[in-house]
Formats: sequence, C-alpha cells, structure tokens
Amino acid sequence: MATLSVDLGERSYPILVGPGLLEEKGLIARYIAGNEVLVITNETVAPLYLDKIIGALDRFNVTCQVLPDGEQHKSLETLQGIFDTLLQNRLSRGVTLVALGGGVIGDIAGFAAACYQRGVAFVQVPTTLLAQVDSAVGGKTAVNHPLGKNMIGAFHQPTCVVSDTHTLTTLAPRELSAGLAEVIKYGLIRDASFFKWLEDNVEQLLTYDHKALEHVIVESCRHKAEVVAQDEREAGQRALLNLGHTFGHAIETASGYGQWLHGEAVAVGMLMAASMSERLGWIDFSDVQRIQTLLTRANLPVTAPKAMSTSDFLDHMSVDKKVTDGRIRLVLLKGIGSAELVAEYPQSLLEDVLSTFPRVS
Amino acid sequence: MATLSVDLGERSYPILVGPGLLEEKGLIARYIAGNEVLVITNETVAPLYLDKIIGALDRFNVTCQVLPDGEQHKSLETLQGIFDTLLQNRLSRGVTLVALGGGVIGDIAGFAAACYQRGVAFVQVPTTLLAQVDSAVGGKTAVNHPLGKNMIGAFHQPTCVVSDTHTLTTLAPRELSAGLAEVIKYGLIRDASFFKWLEDNVEQLLTYDHKALEHVIVESCRHKAEVVAQDEREAGQRALLNLGHTFGHAIETASGYGQWLHGEAVAVGMLMAASMSERLGWIDFSDVQRIQTLLTRANLPVTAPKAMSTSDFLDHMSVDKKVTDGRIRLVLLKGIGSAELVAEYPQSLLEDVLSTFPRVS
Repeated sequence: MATLSVDLGERSYPILVGPGLLEEKGLIARYIAGNEVLVITNETVAPLYLDKIIGALDRFNVTCQVLPDGEQHKSLETLQGIFDTLLQNRLSRGVTLVALGGGVIGDIAGFAAACYQRGVAFVQVPTTLLAQVDSAVGGKTAVNHPLGKNMIGAFHQPTCVVSDTHTLTTLAPRELSAGLAEVIKYGLIRDASFFKWLEDNVEQLLTYDHKALEHVIVESCRHKAEVVAQDEREAGQRALLNLGHTFGHAIETASGYGQWLHGEAVAVGMLMAASMSERLGWIDFSDVQRIQTLLTRANLPVTAPKAMSTSDFLDHMSVDKKVTDGRIRLVLLKGIGSAELVAEYPQSLLEDVLSTFPRVS
Repeated sequence: MATLSVDLGERSYPILVGPGLLEEKGLIARYIAGNEVLVITNETVAPLYLDKIIGALDRFNVTCQVLPDGEQHKSLETLQGIFDTLLQNRLSRGVTLVALGGGVIGDIAGFAAACYQRGVAFVQVPTTLLAQVDSAVGGKTAVNHPLGKNMIGAFHQPTCVVSDTHTLTTLAPRELSAGLAEVIKYGLIRDASFFKWLEDNVEQLLTYDHKALEHVIVESCRHKAEVVAQDEREAGQRALLNLGHTFGHAIETASGYGQWLHGEAVAVGMLMAASMSERLGWIDFSDVQRIQTLLTRANLPVTAPKAMSTSDFLDHMSVDKKVTDGRIRLVLLKGIGSAELVAEYPQSLLEDVLSTFPRVS
C-alpha cells in the first residue's frame, strides 16, 4: 500500500492506494469518528462492491443509498434525495458519508457532506481511474446546473481517500481511457518526464496492468496533493489543473450530461488548448502532434461534437468559473510539462481554433 | 453610525448600524469587489427598499430577484431559482450577492453565495430587527428541509452587514416582537444587566423608539460578534446562542414553516429551557417568572401549539443539529445571564416539562 498526504494543516488527510483496501477491516474505519455511516454509491458499483464495504464497516450503524449511474444525475434533485435519506434516518451531525464510486458519486456525496447540518465528515472511496487520479483528491465537490457544469458546490475536504486498485479490474475500457485523460493532463501541465513515461507505457496501462496503474495513480495523486496543499481554494496555480476543462465542460453541457464522459471531453479540450497554444507560438506543432498521438493511443477522442458550432462553444464557455469581467480565461501550454492561466489573447485566435478544430466525422 | 467588527482573521468584516445607511451612496459599494451584483429580496421588502438600494448601487451591473415572503419559501426549490437567475444572467465568480430583507432572505441568499461556483461574496442588508440583531451576523446560512429546519446549509461569512435602522419603521409589530425574542436571549445567556435594561425599556422598544432600538441592535451585535469570533463553526460556546432553538425549531417544523415566526417559537423555547433549568434546580421559580413576564410584555407567546404532544416535540427535537449519539443536547440556564450546553439530564424531566408546559388555550 502506498500512502500520500494532502497537507492542509488541521484538515490534512491521507491518500491510501493499493489492492483490496476497500474490504480491509479496520482500514476505512480508522477515519470514521462517530458510529453513523451513510454509504452513497450507484447502481453499477453497488452489486460489485457495496457488500464488501459494508462488511468492512460492520461495527458501524450503516445506511446505504444507491443512486442511478451517470453525470446526468449529478443534480440538485439527486442531492435532495440524499438529504431525504439523511433526515428520514435521523442521521446526526456526527454521521460520516462514504462515497463509493466514480467522480459523480464523489462530487455529489462530498457536496451533500458539505451542506448537511452545515458540514459533516466524508470519506472518498473512488472506484474509477478518473476518481482515483483526480476528482477524489482535493475537496472540490459540486452538482451540475442545466446551464453549467459544477456550478453549484463547495470546497470540502474528505477525512481520507481510499483507492482500492482492485476495483479497476471491473472498469469498462471506455472508463479506463477517460481516467487516462486526467493522467496525461498532469504530464502536460507539470511533468514532462511523466508524459514521456506515459508515451512509453500507454498500451501497458490499457491492458489493466496493475503495477503500471498503481504507478500512475500514485504519481497523479502526488501532483494533485502538491497543488492542492499550495492553493486549496484555487486562487492561483490550482486553476492549471483545469487544462482542457473549459472547452471540455462546454462539450459536456452542450451534449447533455452523460453523453460524453468527463475524461473524453477533457481530452478534446486539452487538444484544443494545445492548438491554441501553438497558434500563440508557445509550443511547436510537433508538440501538438505528440499530444494528439498519445490521446489517440489511449483510445480517447480527438474530434469535437459535430453539432457544436463556434458560437455554441463560446456560449457555454462564457459561464465557466474562470470567467472574470466577461473574459474567458484559458489554461494554455508553454511546453509539454508547463502551463499558464491566460486572460489576454486575441479573441479571433480562439474563434479560429474553435471553428477549424476537427469535428466527429 | 455605530461600527462593530466580527474578528475572523482574513474573513473579518464590519457591522454598520445607523439610520439611512441602505441608500447612502458609496457605503455598501465599498464592500463590493467586482462590477456584478445580484440583489435578492422578497415581495414585501421590494416595494419599500429595492429602488433605494439600486440607487445606491448605480455604478454596478445590478440584477434583482424578488422571492415570495415567508419561512416556507426557505427551501431547496427557491434556492434553485436563485441559481437559475445567476446562470441565466451569466453572473461570474466575481458577483456579489446582496441580501435585502429579514432572516429568511439572509439565510437563503447567503447559502446561494456559499454554493454558487463554490463560493462568491455576499453582503447582508437586514431589514428586520431579528436579522439585525442575530441572523445577519455570523455567517450561518441555510435552507429548511421538510423534516428539519436549517438542515442544509453552510458557514459562509458576509463581507459586511449594513443595518439601516430606518427600515424598522415599516416593520409589523409582530415582527418587531419576534426580533425582541433574540434580543432577550443575549441577556439570558450572557448579560444579566442587559436583561435588566430590557425589563426597564421593553415598552419603549415597542413604540419603535429609534434610540432604544439602536441600543439593542448594537448590544446584540456586540455579543454575537464576540461569540462568533471565538467559535465560528460552533465547536463550543456558539451553541449557547441556540437557547430555546431546539424547542423552537420543533414548533416551527411541526406547525409548518411560516405559521410561527422564528422569534415567536424561540420565545416559547426559551421559556421551556428556563422551566427545565428550574426543575434541575439551577434557577429559581422567580427567574422563570421574570423571563415569562418580559416575554409577555414584549408581546411574545408563552404557550405551545395545542396540537403538539410531548412525543411530537421529542420527535422533531431528535433531528436537531445538537443531537449526538441519539442524545438531545439542550442549552439550559444556570442563572439569568449564564447558560450551558447540557447532554446529561434525566429524560423524564424533559418529558415532564414538555407534557406540563401550557398549550395555547
């Protein structure tokens, strides 16, 4: 088992990575203060892992809530259902919520924990690669609004993140690839040698090789934990973790939540950001090619939805959280391994990138 | 104008109290960072003060949202409507929400500010006595759930509180009395001489005497600011501010939100707490009488709803935020001017108080 730490003073917490952790007795239990637990999961994950985690939590008073699966359910309505469960079961301010699932489950359960009785504890037990490398770490919680992704949420740190790498064996190949998009992101924004490692090992990862997957989870969490420790509430460099996300959120929102996986939309968004960076003369065309090649080898999309026009993109991007005074701020690349948040750029250049970017054929 | 301060490090903010502040140009503006403002108010307050505040904010891009009036609208549904407005108007993370109204408006607008894009700025402009002396100060925000009051919320501090005492001239007598309940609370839990002052001046307050009202607002805010500065997230002594609230919330929830004003329910709750304290031998019967007399002179109710049985009370009190490990913790009195949070007491004593407490005849 690998152990990392997110250093946030009295809100610090560990990230535990390894096989079989979910059902290890006493492991998650160590991070639960009271005797009440609400496990929140979805209909896909429940048949696979719910009994196992309940077994590991047998000394607690455990309630379970199984949500429908998919980004389209990361809504205020679903959130209300969680509050109904909490109150119908008279769970107190001492309750700990356990998020067992992917990014959607972690985000909504974390936000429920942030709001219930003005804040209760929660534990992240991510079961997808995307959640293990990214969304379960760092305390960003949210639900979507029909007009914008993750628009309603809170910063609320978990008391621990338990990443059982065994759960990846049941992950659909499409979900595995979506997770790799966020892994590739860390290489692009912070670590050229990790990007190179991914170029050398991407096929290995796609075979669900346990050692390779554990390596990318630990490396990704190390990067994420470093950034979050320095900038918990995204006043500065944490924004760089959003490479490709402003474009990607536009795709997710415009296509209807649940059509594109988050990682897929981010992959296309990162390529758009790379293309924009190249037009600004910040990276070479050969860099864009390297990025496109790695994304393609990871079985990620590199073309945008056919139905989305330039103005569709601009429209959805203008409700992004990084917009200030009407300007869409973008995370762009200064090289492979180096990124920057940019507010000043010719609008025509952005429009060029959006209009010429290849669409799904 | 009186100025107080809530000292919370980098989240410190001023409380400004005085006549005409709401329409004073440049005053509220000083606490708004960007150029986007959403004023949230209700249908009762809007005709009286909305134009005035808009006039004072003429250099901003101001959007307004007028909500229906009443505690029954402090719900997730109403909150969703605020998010709709924010996103339909593409208001960015730089927006400042301005809560213009009583406690309901402050609580829901504050919670919207806590969640929108994971947290935006907000300004409290309380227009009721209850909000000016209590709810606008201290950063507690929330909406109600059908099963429990203020069960969904956040701690989110405003950037300032602007209490225009002129707004009290349009307050209904019933609302004025409700505010006095929270004023009397400060005397009971922290300040015997203030309680005495209230005994000497309650009729003066009921004539809307400006000087007397300003005095109780400043004294109440001074108490609240001191407590909040020492215990922002209610780990300890802040809980004492909830004297009467566990009983009161049960009345509000059981009666249907909006039937009882919050201050009215708190008045009855404080008398229940006093009665319980007397049975424990902590205060004298003459103290209970003094409290009942002052509440009565302030035109506040001192009898519980006829329809509420002992088990109705216990049922609703058991979802209170102060419940831990199944025990209802109560704020009780050690004397007039001194309170304590109590978990250990004979359950039969609480049941006695609830069953024998006079009901509305």
